[in-house]
Amino acid sequence: MRDVVPTVRGPEDALAALRDAAPLTHCVTNAVVTGFTANVLLALGASPAMVDIEGEAGLFAGVADGVLVNLGTPNPQQQASAREIVGATRRWVLDPVAVGVLPVRTALAAELVAAGPAVIRGNASEIAAVAGRGVGGRGVDSTDDPETVHAAAAELAQRTGAVVAVSGAVDLVTDGVRTVRVPGGDPLLTRVTGGGCSLGATIAAFLGVVEPFSAAVAGSLVHKRAAEVAASVSSGPGSFAVAFLDALAGLRPSDLDAARLTTAGDAR
Amino acid sequence: MRDVVPTVRGPEDALAALRDAAPLTHCVTNAVVTGFTANVLLALGASPAMVDIEGEAGLFAGVADGVLVNLGTPNPQQQASAREIVGATRRWVLDPVAVGVLPVRTALAAELVAAGPAVIRGNASEIAAVAGRGVGGRGVDSTDDPETVHAAAAELAQRTGAVVAVSGAVDLVTDGVRTVRVPGGDPLLTRVTGGGCSLGATIAAFLGVVEPFSAAVAGSLVHKRAAEVAASVSSGPGSFAVAFLDALAGLRPSDLDAARLTTAGDAR
Amino acid sequence: MRDVVPTVRGPEDALAALRDAAPLTHCVTNAVVTGFTANVLLALGASPAMVDIEGEAGLFAGVADGVLVNLGTPNPQQQASAREIVGATRRWVLDPVAVGVLPVRTALAAELVAAGPAVIRGNASEIAAVAGRGVGGRGVDSTDDPETVHAAAAELAQRTGAVVAVSGAVDLVTDGVRTVRVPGGDPLLTRVTGGGCSLGATIAAFLGVVEPFSAAVAGSLVHKRAAEVAASVSSGPGSFAVAFLDALAGLRPSDLDAARLTTAGDAR
Repeated sequence: MRDVVPTVRGPEDALAALRDAAPLTHCVTNAVVTGFTANVLLALGASPAMVDIEGEAGLFAGVADGVLVNLGTPNPQQQASAREIVGATRRWVLDPVAVGVLPVRTALAAELVAAGPAVIRGNASEIAAVAGRGVGGRGVDSTDDPETVHAAAAELAQRTGAVVAVSGAVDLVTDGVRTVRVPGGDPLLTRVTGGGCSLGATIAAFLGVVEPFSAAVAGSLVHKRAAEVAASVSSGPGSFAVAFLDALAGLRPSDLDAARLTTAGDAR
Repeated sequence: MRDVVPTVRGPEDALAALRDAAPLTHCVTNAVVTGFTANVLLALGASPAMVDIEGEAGLFAGVADGVLVNLGTPNPQQQASAREIVGATRRWVLDPVAVGVLPVRTALAAELVAAGPAVIRGNASEIAAVAGRGVGGRGVDSTDDPETVHAAAAELAQRTGAVVAVSGAVDLVTDGVRTVRVPGGDPLLTRVTGGGCSLGATIAAFLGVVEPFSAAVAGSLVHKRAAEVAASVSSGPGSFAVAFLDALAGLRPSDLDAARLTTAGDAR
Repeated sequence: MRDVVPTVRGPEDALAALRDAAPLTHCVTNAVVTGFTANVLLALGASPAMVDIEGEAGLFAGVADGVLVNLGTPNPQQQASAREIVGATRRWVLDPVAVGVLPVRTALAAELVAAGPAVIRGNASEIAAVAGRGVGGRGVDSTDDPETVHAAAAELAQRTGAVVAVSGAVDLVTDGVRTVRVPGGDPLLTRVTGGGCSLGATIAAFLGVVEPFSAAVAGSLVHKRAAEVAASVSSGPGSFAVAFLDALAGLRPSDLDAARLTTAGDAR
């Protein structure tokens, strides 16, 4: 590894730009987290819409500022929607939930990775599975540290051209050339369903205002910071989820503390 | 416009009647807002049920006190459910989410409007699209003031026989002969997913106890008043959504302040 | 009825075991309550996953520690998922939501009961319908006291080999030989959508660590106790739902107060 000068647009600027633009963020996401995801986007200042019907999803992706394709509950309508979307836009995030274990989504993820997502976001198990390095986790959980899949993530980025974002105690964002690490956050976010899935949506919203690497870094930092604020005022996972939305809405660009980010070149 | 004597049953009486009857309120609604919508109905004092399966929806609509057909995520099962419902009851609300932009729901909305809803509820963009006056909004958002579609809404009401309810900073309810305006509320309600969709469900619940015009006015006023109470005790969209449910449950008929309503005859 | 010595593993031990094991709990459940159900399981200390796609549900059930099949919105994918699941595991809970009134789920419930669930959980109307004793309720509501279906529940348990859990002001759990009654809780839990459905998921989580009778008793007691804690700090159904999640997360085994349980043999 060697130190490199960060070339990302700063998260503060990205958040200010998002608030100005209110990017139309189109989500095809799983049935468990649709409501929370929409509320995260609304709190952040984006404009969410969930259009997952065959014959509509592609058209809508063409006018959206950023798109999320999350494979958590990929019923036939969502499968068709995903295929329409990837032909209609390049500003889309792939979230390969529980890929590796389950055949329908694993095959679909392989097809979608080949279609060129701007960002691939997952936990360590999911990224390992997409990269062909593991058999995936027990579902949406992950016991792996993002560092354990750093090399696999960097190779996946190089091979596909996508930015790869790995979530964990310290998030890791790589384009195969440089890696930014995003520490912080709070474990309570893992006790709320949609904590990770809504990060994919947040990155999709940022795709409407900045390039993919900056979008992934800004999304991670925003979630980490809002989780810290929320944890300081909550007494369990229920009140934390409520406070997380309040914190997202109240977050000012100057609160983001980008100094915590560390940047390094990827070993090759 | 000319002043007319209001003939609506008062919102206070409507709320008291709803609390007594606990109307069975059947919702076919989008995947994003099902949970919040059910919680709004439960908080209000209604009895929600979401039955959106072919072969069941029509049967259930026949025993329900009021029905909502919301087109936010109209998958094939929900399309079939909507067609069953409109043959089984006249006490139903059509919420044409994002109609005008997207072809599946736009065609379905045209078919459903012709089937005779008791109430059509939407934002200004959606009502303009249903009335054939616009191309719809960017999804569920609307930048239009309800006043800009007043004439279109009144004509839609006259043509279809439905009461038309347009949501915005000041809600507008018209049957083509008279119009009631409902001011108040709080912008935070637009930062919670399902704020508008749950109003459609609330109006459907009121259809179980009063006629359509009174149901639409009562629903709007209840949401405006509960939003005001909630905004006074919350610190962001997360806590607002929680407080909104508490406020709905705590709302007494005498809190409704119907004096804020203004009534006028429609120009023709 | 005669007094018998309880043979169930105590709820305190069951909760401690659940916290240690974090059982992977697979839910096929209705669209209204997926998010709340996942949050209940996360708060409790289980690891939820909702896999309701044909070709995946059976595989996943085979690795899950406990499974819920809830019939609230049984679309074709969920019907196929349910059939896969019952061939892949014996540790599953059937929640026959609104069975008796609606034909698709009523036929499916009859088929699933014959496939051998470990636990059947419902309100009095639903249990009566499954037992062939009634025509079901108005949907998810129930006006019946569990005691009114005690005999039907005990016979259903004897006939199917399943533990039958009936929810109400006093929950009733029977295997056809003995019955445990679980008093307590708070009516506010009936004002939150998913209050009952999430109990089915909680029992499924306990199936990962204890046998079915103990799982049903522990699940009921945990929900009753958490509801009491939540009611003491909330001011309506919105804040209650939030506090319920916090209370589940904060619940210690020693808080469970199993002394409130009463056990009796079933009359025959």
